[in-house]
Amino acid sequence: MSMIVDLNSDMGEGFGAWTMGADEALLGIVTSANIACGYHAGDPEIMAETFRLAKERGVAIGAHPGYPDLWGFGRRRIPFSPGEVERFVAYQIGAAQAVAAYAGHKLTYVKAHGALSNAASEDATLARAIAQAVKAVDPSLGLLAIALTELVKAGEDAGLQTYQEIFADRGYTEEGQLISRAKPGALITNADEAADRVYAMVTEGAIISASGKRLKTPIHSICVHGDSAHAVEAASKVRARLTGAGITLRAFAG
Amino acid sequence: MSMIVDLNSDMGEGFGAWTMGADEALLGIVTSANIACGYHAGDPEIMAETFRLAKERGVAIGAHPGYPDLWGFGRRRIPFSPGEVERFVAYQIGAAQAVAAYAGHKLTYVKAHGALSNAASEDATLARAIAQAVKAVDPSLGLLAIALTELVKAGEDAGLQTYQEIFADRGYTEEGQLISRAKPGALITNADEAADRVYAMVTEGAIISASGKRLKTPIHSICVHGDSAHAVEAASKVRARLTGAGITLRAFAG
Amino acid sequence: MSMIVDLNSDMGEGFGAWTMGADEALLGIVTSANIACGYHAGDPEIMAETFRLAKERGVAIGAHPGYPDLWGFGRRRIPFSPGEVERFVAYQIGAAQAVAAYAGHKLTYVKAHGALSNAASEDATLARAIAQAVKAVDPSLGLLAIALTELVKAGEDAGLQTYQEIFADRGYTEEGQLISRAKPGALITNADEAADRVYAMVTEGAIISASGKRLKTPIHSICVHGDSAHAVEAASKVRARLTGAGITLRAFAG
Amino acid sequence: MSMIVDLNSDMGEGFGAWTMGADEALLGIVTSANIACGYHAGDPEIMAETFRLAKERGVAIGAHPGYPDLWGFGRRRIPFSPGEVERFVAYQIGAAQAVAAYAGHKLTYVKAHGALSNAASEDATLARAIAQAVKAVDPSLGLLAIALTELVKAGEDAGLQTYQEIFADRGYTEEGQLISRAKPGALITNADEAADRVYAMVTEGAIISASGKRLKTPIHSICVHGDSAHAVEAASKVRARLTGAGITLRAFAG
Repeated sequence: MSMIVDLNSDMGEGFGAWTMGADEALLGIVTSANIACGYHAGDPEIMAETFRLAKERGVAIGAHPGYPDLWGFGRRRIPFSPGEVERFVAYQIGAAQAVAAYAGHKLTYVKAHGALSNAASEDATLARAIAQAVKAVDPSLGLLAIALTELVKAGEDAGLQTYQEIFADRGYTEEGQLISRAKPGALITNADEAADRVYAMVTEGAIISASGKRLKTPIHSICVHGDSAHAVEAASKVRARLTGAGITLRAFAG
Repeated sequence: MSMIVDLNSDMGEGFGAWTMGADEALLGIVTSANIACGYHAGDPEIMAETFRLAKERGVAIGAHPGYPDLWGFGRRRIPFSPGEVERFVAYQIGAAQAVAAYAGHKLTYVKAHGALSNAASEDATLARAIAQAVKAVDPSLGLLAIALTELVKAGEDAGLQTYQEIFADRGYTEEGQLISRAKPGALITNADEAADRVYAMVTEGAIISASGKRLKTPIHSICVHGDSAHAVEAASKVRARLTGAGITLRAFAG
Repeated sequence: MSMIVDLNSDMGEGFGAWTMGADEALLGIVTSANIACGYHAGDPEIMAETFRLAKERGVAIGAHPGYPDLWGFGRRRIPFSPGEVERFVAYQIGAAQAVAAYAGHKLTYVKAHGALSNAASEDATLARAIAQAVKAVDPSLGLLAIALTELVKAGEDAGLQTYQEIFADRGYTEEGQLISRAKPGALITNADEAADRVYAMVTEGAIISASGKRLKTPIHSICVHGDSAHAVEAASKVRARLTGAGITLRAFAG
Repeated sequence: MSMIVDLNSDMGEGFGAWTMGADEALLGIVTSANIACGYHAGDPEIMAETFRLAKERGVAIGAHPGYPDLWGFGRRRIPFSPGEVERFVAYQIGAAQAVAAYAGHKLTYVKAHGALSNAASEDATLARAIAQAVKAVDPSLGLLAIALTELVKAGEDAGLQTYQEIFADRGYTEEGQLISRAKPGALITNADEAADRVYAMVTEGAIISASGKRLKTPIHSICVHGDSAHAVEAASKVRARLTGAGITLRAFAG
C-alpha cells in the first residue's frame, strides 16, 4: 500500500503589471495551488489565468484569502474583528469560486495567507471566524491549515474536511511551531536537507523540531515556495525525494 | 388578471465609514435591491448587512458590479477590454453570492452599475462580456438591463433570463434612450408626474419619450432612487400609484 | 490683556462621491482646519476645495495625515514601523502642501489623525517618527498634538513649534487621558456643559478630569467636531461661550 | 566646445513587495531618474529609498506622476477632466518633494507617466493642466516632455523650463510621433542600432523617422529603459556611444 501526500504552493500573487514567483514552474511540481484572491495580491486577470493553467496541468486549486493590504502583501496583522474576518474571507472565497468557474476549474479548498494565517494559527476566535466563513459559503470546501494549530481545531469543530500542512523549508520549535524568521534556524536553506527532513516527517507522521523532537500529527500536505530559482529547485527536490521513495503525490481535495 | 411589475433600487453603496442613500427606507418600498460588490462602492460589512436586511424584508437581491473605481464611484468609463470586463464582473458576482450565502440570502440576478451599465447599453462587445460573465458563474442568475439596449440583446442571445427596466425619474429621447444629464428634461423632478408616467409606461407596455412617443418594450422592473429624502418620497409615490391601480409589485426573480 | 485660543476641527474627510461632516458650517466656527490627505480620507478634489474655502473664510490649515486605510477611515492601528510612519507622514504632508499651494492657501501645521494620533500619543517611538517627518519636510510647520502626550514631548524635543489641544466633547481620566469610548463618561453630550467645561479648562490652564481633578497644561487649541447637526451646534456654543467671555479666537499658527 | 545631453529613466516603479526594473543598475547609467509617486506605482518606502540612492549616485530626480491606477500601472487613459488632472498631479508632485526632502535629495523636474503622458502629448487641455499643476506647486521645477508634443508647447506657454526627450528604443513616424506598439517598427530591439540612431539624433538635433526623415527639435534628454537585462545593456550602449564620441552626459536640471 502506497503513502499519499499533497504538495501545495502559493500562486497568482502578482498584481497588474507586477509579477511574483515562478507559477509556471511550480505548476509542474505541486498537486495543489493556493491562489490569491485580490486582497493581498492577485486580480481577476491573474486569477483566471492561474486557474486555467492549473486546470491544464491537473493541479487542484484553493482560495488563498488574506488581509485587505496590497501594500503590505497581507503580511501585516491588521486589527479586524472576528466578524469582519468572517465576512472578508467569505467575500474572497466567493470571488475565487466565480473566477474559477469562469476559467473552467473548480475550487476545492481554502488556505489563509500570511499574517491572517499566522493570526488564526494562534487565536481561536480568528480561527473560528475563518472556519465559519468557509462553512457559510460552501461546507464542501476543505480547509488547509498549518499542522497543530488553532485553525486545525476550528476547522474540525466546524465539521469541515480539515487538512494539515508542514513547511518544507522552515525550522520548527519544540512546541511544533515555526521558528520566527528573526531567529537562527528559521529557514532550511539546503535543498537536500529540506527534502530529507520532509521525507522523514511524512513517513514518521510527525513534525520534527530543530532539536530532533517528534510531534505526532497527520500530514496531508507539504508547503513549498516558488519565489526564487533556488526555491523552485528545492521544491523539485522535495518532489523527487518523495516520489523516489514510492510515495504518491496527489491533491488532498478535488 | 393582475399586472405584475418589480421595483428596484441600488443599495449598499457606502464604503467603510461613509454612507450613501436611505437603504432602510428603500427596503420598505422596493421588491429588488441591486447591491454594490466592493469595486465602485460597498465592502463585505455593508454587503452582509444589506443582504441580511433585504432577507428580513423579503426583498430580492442582485449583484451590482461596477468598474474598479471607488474614487469615481464607478461613474468613469475606464477602457477595459471586454475580456477584462468579463473577469472582473465574474469576480464581483462570486463575491456577492458568497456574502449573500453568509448572510442567509440568495442572489437571483445581476445588474451592471453606472458607467459600466451605460457602456454596455451601447457597446455590443461589452454587453456580451457581461452576459458571458453571468453565464459562466451561474446561468440560473437573471440579467436586469436597461430596456431596449444592447445589453438586453446580449442577455437574450446568451440564453439568460433577461429583464428590462425603465427609470422612474429620467426623461427619454425619441429613440428610447435616457436624455443626457447635461440636457433639459433629463430628470423628472415632480414626484406625482413621475408616478403618473410610470403608471402609463407599465400599463401601455412602452417607454414614453419626452415628446410623447411610445416605444414598445417589455417592462419587468422600474428603477427608483434613494439618495435623498425627496427621492425616497418619489419612490414611495411610484409604489402607491401602481398598487393603488391594482398592479402587483413583485420581484421578477427569486 | 486678552486670552487667545484656537478652535480646530477635522475636515475634508469625504472621498469621491461620499461626504462626511458639515465642513461649510464648521468653517464659520473654527480658526484652524485639519485636512485629510488621501490616506484615511480625502482626495485631491476635496482637498483643493476645502483649502480654497478655508482661505476664503480666513481659516488656517493643517495637514491631517492618517494610516493608509480608506476602508477603516484611519481608525485601525496598523502595525507600521516608526520608519514607515515617518515616510508616509512625510508623503501626506507634501501632498497637502502642494494642493494647498494650488488652491492659493498655505499649510501651517500638522495634526495626526485617528488611530495614528492615538498610537503616537502613547508610543514615544511613533511620536518621534511623526515629529521627524514634519521636521524633515518643513521645520517651519507647527505640530498640533493632544495635550500631555508623548507626541507633545516628541515635537518639543525635535525643536518644532508644538501646540497642545483639548477636546470639547470628551471626558478625561485622572491621568489626563481621554476616557475610552467604550466607557461611561467618554462623551459629553450636553452642549452647554461642554462649553462651560471648555471655558473652565482654558481659563484655568488645565485639563479637568471627570472627577474634577486639574492637570496643568498649556492649551493652544480646542478640538470640536462637525459630524452631525448636534456637533455643529455644540461647536457653535463653545465658540459663543469663549468669545462672550472676551477670549479671542485665533489660529495658533499662520 | 562639448555637446551635453541627459539620459533619463523611469524608476521606483515597484509597489510594496513587488519590484519592477533594475533601478540599481540604471542609477549607474542615467543622469536623471523619473520616480513614481504612488498613483500608478511606488510607495513612500520605495520613493525614499530610490531618492536616497539617486542622491548617493549623483543622479537628478523628477516626479513621475500618473493616473491613479495601480492595477493598470498608469497605462489606461481614464477620463479625468483637466481640472482633476491638475489637482492629482499637484498632489503627486508635493508628495514626491516631501519624500525627497526626507531622503536628503531635491526634486528638480516633473515628467508625466504612461497614459497620462500620451494623453497630454496629444490633448492641449490636458497638457495645460499638467503645466499648470507644476507651475502652481513650484514654478522652479522643470517639465520634461516628449519632443514635438502639445505638452512641450504647454510647458513653454506656462513659462516653465521645458525640456524635450527622445526615446532610445522606439521608432518614429514621419510626423515625429512614436510608432504605435501594435505596429511593426515600434521597438528598436538591436542595441547597437539604437545607440547609433541616438547618436545621430543628438548630433543632428533632430528626430529621425523610420523612413529616415529628419524633424528638427531641441533634444535635452534621452529616455532609456531598465525593465529587463537586455534593456539595461541597451541603455549602457547608448551611454557608451555618446561618451565615446565626446558628448557630456549631464542632468538638464538640478
